Amino acid sequence: MSETWLPSLITKTPQEGYELAVKLSRVAVKMTQPDPEIRDDLRKVYESDADALIAVSAVVATHYQTVAAANNYWR
Amino acid sequence: MSETWLPSLITKTPQEGYELAVKLSRVAVKMTQPDPEIRDDLRKVYESDADALIAVSAVVATHYQTVAAANNYWR
Amino acid sequence: MSETWLPSLITKTPQEGYELAVKLSRVAVKMTQPDPEIRDDLRKVYESDADALIAVSAVVATHYQTVAAANNYWR
Amino acid sequence: MSETWLPSLITKTPQEGYELAVKLSRVAVKMTQPDPEIRDDLRKVYESDADALIAVSAVVATHYQTVAAANNYWR
Amino acid sequence: MSETWLPSLITKTPQEGYELAVKLSRVAVKMTQPDPEIRDDLRKVYESDADALIAVSAVVATHYQTVAAANNYWR
Amino acid sequence: MSETWLPSLITKTPQEGYELAVKLSRVAVKMTQPDPEIRDDLRKVYESDADALIAVSAVVATHYQTVAAANNYWR
Repeated sequence: MSETWLPSLITKTPQEGYELAVKLSRVAVKMTQPDPEIRDDLRKVYESDADALIAVSAVVATHYQTVAAANNYWR
Repeated sequence: MSETWLPSLITKTPQEGYELAVKLSRVAVKMTQPDPEIRDDLRKVYESDADALIAVSAVVATHYQTVAAANNYWR
Repeated sequence: MSETWLPSLITKTPQEGYELAVKLSRVAVKMTQPDPEIRDDLRKVYESDADALIAVSAVVATHYQTVAAANNYWR
Repeated sequence: MSETWLPSLITKTPQEGYELAVKLSRVAVKMTQPDPEIRDDLRKVYESDADALIAVSAVVATHYQTVAAANNYWR
Repeated sequence: MSETWLPSLITKTPQEGYELAVKLSRVAVKMTQPDPEIRDDLRKVYESDADALIAVSAVVATHYQTVAAANNYWR
Repeated sequence: MSETWLPSLITKTPQEGYELAVKLSRVAVKMTQPDPEIRDDLRKVYESDADALIAVSAVVATHYQTVAAANNYWR
């Protein structure tokens, strides 16, 4: 992952900030499991598992705190 | 999810802020599992599972930190 | 839940703030599982389950961060 | 729990603050499971369970953030 | 644990701060399970359990937030 | 781990900050399980386990909050 995928934490709207938080939550998974085929298999499992979906949502919530603070809450 | 669903983190009251935190916790699930039928099935499972309900509450708590800070705690 | 249940995050003492954090942790459960009978059944399970009690305590801790910050730590 | 158990978040030292964080993490358990006998039984289980001990430590860490901020990190 | 084990949150470097965060994460376990023999037995279990190691790392991360803020991020 | 591995929390870009957060999340595992062979075995398990990967992502998210704050969000 040597290309630039995160040039800035600044987004135009709260919603774009949320989408960035989702992206941030996925990159750590990619960096830990670089094989896209294995990730696809895992995705089939966790996208139909309530506990895993809630856990994903928790990670997004933590990253959204960071993105929202970076944008001074788009006030 | 290309429509605008999050125009602002600002709410009139702490209670509306809490409702926004609940919404924020659900959107990540929707973005990870876009099929509404599968989500309905999963919901039937987790809404009667104490551990899952507590985990949902944890995600709401994290988002509520963000919303409350954005609103300067409605002071 | 259309009635007002959260008029303010401001409390007179740290202890009242803690009680508010407990309330905040419970409301998300109510909003996800609105049926009081099912919640009563679930409560019987989790109030005798160490892992669930610790998880509840974690949610309270997160909300207490918010309430304490809102009250400027009652300094 | 109508008596005063939390008069202040201010402590003299970082270490006393840590002890307060431990206390804060336990009170939520007491408020959810008020029966001391059941809590004693549960304690025997979780104090010999690595996952539960780590989860307790996580709750303490969250409360310690609050107490440390309240005390301006004892700087 | 009546001796002084936490005189200050201030450290000279980010790395020493990290070591302090590790220490902070362990003390809560000691205070919950004071018997060193039981802790040694538990350690043998969790140090070879991926989920437990990740959970330990999560606690360290939370404490590191506190220590880093206390040191104004060593800026 | 007596060598210097964390001279600073300051990074040039948000992306380098993210890489530092990943590193911070791994060091706690190393400090708890110093044997590289056991860690390699564990890695084979958790890198193909969706729950573990999400948990790793949660730890990274917490550390990224710290790194982002240290860098004033690269604003």
